[in-house]
Amino acid sequence: MTGFSLVVVSNRGPFTLVDGPDGRVEFRPAAGGVAPSLTAALGEESATSGSAALWVAAAMTEADRVHASGVAVATGQDSLKLRMVSVTTEIGRAAIDVIANGTLWFLHHGLFDHARRPRFDRVWHEAWGGYRLFNEAFADTIAEEAATGATVVVNDYHLALVGGYLAKRRPDLKTAFFSHTPFCSADDLAMMPDGPRLELMESMSGFGACGFHTLRWRDAFVRCTSAVGVEAPATFVAPLGADPARLDEVAGTAACRSRLARLEEELDGRTLLVRSDRVELSKNLIRGFLAFDELLESSAQWRGRLVFLARVYSSRESLPEYLAYRTEVQHVVARVNQRWGAPGYTPVVLDLEDDFAGTVAALRRYDMLLVNPVRDGLNLVAMEGPAVNERDGVVVLSREAGAHDELADVAIGINPFDVTGTAAAMARGLSMSRAEREDRAAELRRRARSRTPADWLAELRRVAKVPADGDMGTWSRPDL
Amino acid sequence: MTGFSLVVVSNRGPFTLVDGPDGRVEFRPAAGGVAPSLTAALGEESATSGSAALWVAAAMTEADRVHASGVAVATGQDSLKLRMVSVTTEIGRAAIDVIANGTLWFLHHGLFDHARRPRFDRVWHEAWGGYRLFNEAFADTIAEEAATGATVVVNDYHLALVGGYLAKRRPDLKTAFFSHTPFCSADDLAMMPDGPRLELMESMSGFGACGFHTLRWRDAFVRCTSAVGVEAPATFVAPLGADPARLDEVAGTAACRSRLARLEEELDGRTLLVRSDRVELSKNLIRGFLAFDELLESSAQWRGRLVFLARVYSSRESLPEYLAYRTEVQHVVARVNQRWGAPGYTPVVLDLEDDFAGTVAALRRYDMLLVNPVRDGLNLVAMEGPAVNERDGVVVLSREAGAHDELADVAIGINPFDVTGTAAAMARGLSMSRAEREDRAAELRRRARSRTPADWLAELRRVAKVPADGDMGTWSRPDL
Repeated sequence: MTGFSLVVVSNRGPFTLVDGPDGRVEFRPAAGGVAPSLTAALGEESATSGSAALWVAAAMTEADRVHASGVAVATGQDSLKLRMVSVTTEIGRAAIDVIANGTLWFLHHGLFDHARRPRFDRVWHEAWGGYRLFNEAFADTIAEEAATGATVVVNDYHLALVGGYLAKRRPDLKTAFFSHTPFCSADDLAMMPDGPRLELMESMSGFGACGFHTLRWRDAFVRCTSAVGVEAPATFVAPLGADPARLDEVAGTAACRSRLARLEEELDGRTLLVRSDRVELSKNLIRGFLAFDELLESSAQWRGRLVFLARVYSSRESLPEYLAYRTEVQHVVARVNQRWGAPGYTPVVLDLEDDFAGTVAALRRYDMLLVNPVRDGLNLVAMEGPAVNERDGVVVLSREAGAHDELADVAIGINPFDVTGTAAAMARGLSMSRAEREDRAAELRRRARSRTPADWLAELRRVAKVPADGDMGTWSRPDL
Repeated sequence: MTGFSLVVVSNRGPFTLVDGPDGRVEFRPAAGGVAPSLTAALGEESATSGSAALWVAAAMTEADRVHASGVAVATGQDSLKLRMVSVTTEIGRAAIDVIANGTLWFLHHGLFDHARRPRFDRVWHEAWGGYRLFNEAFADTIAEEAATGATVVVNDYHLALVGGYLAKRRPDLKTAFFSHTPFCSADDLAMMPDGPRLELMESMSGFGACGFHTLRWRDAFVRCTSAVGVEAPATFVAPLGADPARLDEVAGTAACRSRLARLEEELDGRTLLVRSDRVELSKNLIRGFLAFDELLESSAQWRGRLVFLARVYSSRESLPEYLAYRTEVQHVVARVNQRWGAPGYTPVVLDLEDDFAGTVAALRRYDMLLVNPVRDGLNLVAMEGPAVNERDGVVVLSREAGAHDELADVAIGINPFDVTGTAAAMARGLSMSRAEREDRAAELRRRARSRTPADWLAELRRVAKVPADGDMGTWSRPDL
């Protein structure tokens, strides 16, 4: 069987197609996430192997649907082709908004307000049917395109059922699933309706191997399989690192240099605290601002002297929870600024612009970086910051982030729910001796640059395997 | 040392004192909870042993403070004296509203909306100091009143620190703590600030023994002790049963008979679904009404034929979360009634009156009882219902309630988060054959009446023991 010997799969792809003004199709690179780094890594890989890889992703634009679904298209990068999976708007919304982002994301990050959510009602049960169809469409596409014995790397919770479907269609393929998120506890998994819960765990066990950023999420996954009586597949832990080559490249651009110069001018010699996150419930923005407020209250010397630059860009605004959260964030920032602001001094600067050059400029310049999620698979910012920071900046890091596993002894660890504790950790970071800051920053930098996305991809290729010959269950095809 | 040989301790006592119109102090019995049953059980106990027991509780009224703090008073029941612990309003609010009901209750029931709560800020850390003082005041009172080698039974999360204080003051006492709530997972406990978390677990380990309604909460507690590196005390499982004698007595009153007659008249031969709960986030009222809505949608034969009598009485309205929840509950009920109501037919009847005679009347009459908490230590209604029901009623019971452990095979178990699943379980209950209903109801009744509060108290006396000679830690006395 001809076809691709390496297939990378994710909901959002590395490029989106757009119909250009001259009638030609343009490839617009994805803004964030790991796609840009992985694209580069795939380039290196393919250059070595001499064969192109395929990326399979969901069609997002009309041009995606017209030009890239049903056929693999060249991307302008010799080594990488792209194929889009197109489903109806109804199925896409059910699969992504209701199930993936509206349920599984909340479940794995422990974000449900249990008195009210989750609510597995008729609408939800129908949406589960859409999630199946979405996953099945991906499995069909992969089955069509993959060469005999090819390696397939599937990313994240949007596509958790692909393992089961693919094991039936193409048992010859070496597959690996990688979860960039945490994995829920068995107690939390028990909230899911019985049928979908079992289907989810059996389908994930249909992959040859399932991987996570830390042992903690791996162990949670294994406990969930045994809680529903499913035999776990092979599992592995493979944390991503920052992408030093790409970061250095961006740091060297005129855009980044000019952003940095403007930032220096605005700071006017003040000390800089930075955070960089999506406006996302798990990122714990509100408590971060409240901790900053307590810091200024308890440490008068920092009033007027410390600026909190919060780069927070909007996200998932099709879900009402995110719109409400953004409003709350803006209110708390307004309160803090009203309380501590003065002529020429804005304590918290909310920067909503989602440009990577601006992010890298802020990361180069920070004196302290705050990364305080309530739960996080890894948190790449905690790696990217130290990789490019030029001021021996301190990192204040939530112990609930996967990255804490690797950085516990060089960052200042915090309990993200403890506002007062977070303020105390920041005060400690700001008063740290020059020598200690330098020592810690050097070690943070070394660890953050020690692994590249290419290393990660090589590891995924190494551990992918043909699924065990388990019982994949038989799921009825729902109407939608 | 003279003093009481049995001391029962809880935040709310069995009686509240009120200054009567003729200048005499009146004892007003507590409305709900286990206090009435335990009071009766104490009567039996003391009649046997020939000595009076002491109940120590928090002063709630001005008369409590004036007449019963600082001295044990007779209650009008020969066998029971009462002593009230009086603290300042500020300490009381900090201990009960902020820490006990606002934090520990939420923690043990998994009710936090993690993106926003808990928020361990300066106000919270100060309130923790109030919680200490509250617990210490109880320990002082117990230490004053208990005879050498006496048995002390402490109830619930309001008083979790009493164990540590008492072990230092009176290591001769046999103590048992009993938690009527669930106990949180080690993951959830990790949200608490480090100091208070350790203090909580060390203090609980200062009791001679800690008890729970089910193995599940016991195991969670033991895992929490080992997560913080504390040696667990002796533990035990001792589920409460209903109080058949008291239920039968109430059932025989004129008040209950007249309530039942009025209910029959209103029902006019319709089938009756009942629930009876505080308006409490853990009780899952909203999903219960949504499930009823789905039931009427999918089973047209029940429209106009099935009435849902929801006895829900208000609770903890000093916490804003509870006021908001009540409003949401009223909205969803209004929607369901608007959708399915007809002249002469109100599908959901919200009965907010908190009278036990009315509750017993509803429990005698139900055809189906819905008990669907998202998490519950035991849920006494699931026991009281079958103990007095006269119509071979079906019980639809959350698998997250402690009572499910004992009733799993005779109730219809549900996942409380699964609205559609709950509707399906109710449909199944309504269509169950007469023979199956009778068999199940007989067994439900047998189990519900198999243990009395007196049995429970005897068990507590049996397992109470002198605490192990562990290190209780040294907690600084905070200013408040």
